[in-house]
Amino acid sequence: MDGDMGDLGEREFLRRLRARAGSGTSVLRVGIGDDAAVLRPPRGSEVVVTTDLMLEGVHFRRDWHSAGMVGARCLTRGVSDLAAMGARPTAAFLSLGLPPGDLAWGEAFLEGVLGLAREYGVELAGGDLAESRGGAVADIVLTGSVPRGRALLRSGARRGDFVYVTGELGGAAADLARLRGGGRAEHVARARVEVGEFLMRRGIASACIDLSDGLSTDLDHLCEESGVGAEVSSAAVPVARGSSLEMAVNGGEDYELLFTAAGRVPKVIAGVAVSRIGRVVKARKGGRVWVDGSVLEVRGWEHFR
Amino acid sequence: MDGDMGDLGEREFLRRLRARAGSGTSVLRVGIGDDAAVLRPPRGSEVVVTTDLMLEGVHFRRDWHSAGMVGARCLTRGVSDLAAMGARPTAAFLSLGLPPGDLAWGEAFLEGVLGLAREYGVELAGGDLAESRGGAVADIVLTGSVPRGRALLRSGARRGDFVYVTGELGGAAADLARLRGGGRAEHVARARVEVGEFLMRRGIASACIDLSDGLSTDLDHLCEESGVGAEVSSAAVPVARGSSLEMAVNGGEDYELLFTAAGRVPKVIAGVAVSRIGRVVKARKGGRVWVDGSVLEVRGWEHFR
Repeated sequence: MDGDMGDLGEREFLRRLRARAGSGTSVLRVGIGDDAAVLRPPRGSEVVVTTDLMLEGVHFRRDWHSAGMVGARCLTRGVSDLAAMGARPTAAFLSLGLPPGDLAWGEAFLEGVLGLAREYGVELAGGDLAESRGGAVADIVLTGSVPRGRALLRSGARRGDFVYVTGELGGAAADLARLRGGGRAEHVARARVEVGEFLMRRGIASACIDLSDGLSTDLDHLCEESGVGAEVSSAAVPVARGSSLEMAVNGGEDYELLFTAAGRVPKVIAGVAVSRIGRVVKARKGGRVWVDGSVLEVRGWEHFR
Repeated sequence: MDGDMGDLGEREFLRRLRARAGSGTSVLRVGIGDDAAVLRPPRGSEVVVTTDLMLEGVHFRRDWHSAGMVGARCLTRGVSDLAAMGARPTAAFLSLGLPPGDLAWGEAFLEGVLGLAREYGVELAGGDLAESRGGAVADIVLTGSVPRGRALLRSGARRGDFVYVTGELGGAAADLARLRGGGRAEHVARARVEVGEFLMRRGIASACIDLSDGLSTDLDHLCEESGVGAEVSSAAVPVARGSSLEMAVNGGEDYELLFTAAGRVPKVIAGVAVSRIGRVVKARKGGRVWVDGSVLEVRGWEHFR
């Protein structure tokens, strides 16, 4: 890590962080304090890596989200990407840019990351710290482990497969709507690590993606990568209590898994309900995803739109 | 990647990037386009990971550095961390935050990253893209490969070892002084990958760090991690042409390697001169690094100071 916060020196911050960070476990051989971290992948495994950038005013607002909540969401985004690959999370790297004098916010953010990291079995293995002249900036890198050649990809969906989602959708969008009317976020969705690992180990899913941008966007991504289309029945979409079908289809940050499968799929995996919402069809002109026979517009979260 | 630049859609940007990015090589099994990247580490190897955050106005200025130069420096920082571990670079992940309408700058930045990545044999494996309401933000993650248990650490220096640096120091600080008087940066230092790998394979270095923050800071880091002190002879410090001893000792961004060794060290490694500048001594109170018998103040780059 470079730099420090407030009037703490860089080493002092490092010392504090180290006391909370991991080192010397079976996967993490060298943690914070050297030029880089060293991971020892289990024999026969591959290393899965994902990065997620969160910027103040774009991905979070201080009046809506506490610092700890922003930290928890930041980690969840990355862990959810790993879950979608069927990977088990191993380590996290955090790059943090903080406005001068933001020590308390930064520490609460870190608490949010570390508290949840413990639950997921993720160790903080390194990162970078700098003074930001704009708002707060957080980039999180998650590494995970998956048996060689077994990662769940977006590209494996085949015509005739069915389309499934875990849990319920639209809950995060309903929360966001409530925040717009005042109030503060108190909840962050749980990434479906156990479900992803189950799908990978049993060879159930032909393709998989996590719902971070919303069903309409993410199903479109999956179809694009697989070179297929998908037909969804709106009646089958599991809408979260207090949410709406529109929010369930276009809202982001639910962090459920969306997957396709040809064979039998359990109705409950690792304690999470699984719903069959549609089927994979041939790619055709004019759209990739249809709901109740109409082309679905991609409306999930996209920057610069 | 999430988001896009200017009026290009996210997918369009992704398509452009993909044409330039790596996929399906021996190490990188799944690149850009899925939830995460998948790396297959060579048998008997460990994975080295480093992250570096660069913020506009803090780490770079547009009037001093072209976008391509900022990209090249960003990549160099990360590759240099890997070099200091004796690791061979494998893949890069780039998280980029750009102010609205900054398409041209972002593309030139990416060119700077990708052009140099090719030289180092690094593939772009993924990343994230978002709109920044502050200045430009870039976080780069580099992964590398090192034989199991062989990474060069900061913590191995022992009393009686000698202290060495590669190349010449203070060149980057002299450039910076010139920029302060007007002008534009045209040069980025070369990370010492081949030197680091040589030191690792031959078992020459007992400890190693790269000179990113400056000799005074980085030697202090190495001594702290090793629990030792160091005595440096100023006459032995290789000062770059147009620079000064003060710049060579306290200037950052030279990206040379600083290492300790007990045995014989070649005078030239991989075409780079190696200078013996001092020796490792017992840790004692009052300071960790001495130059010509006086305690050296740590004056290298540190944020929030």
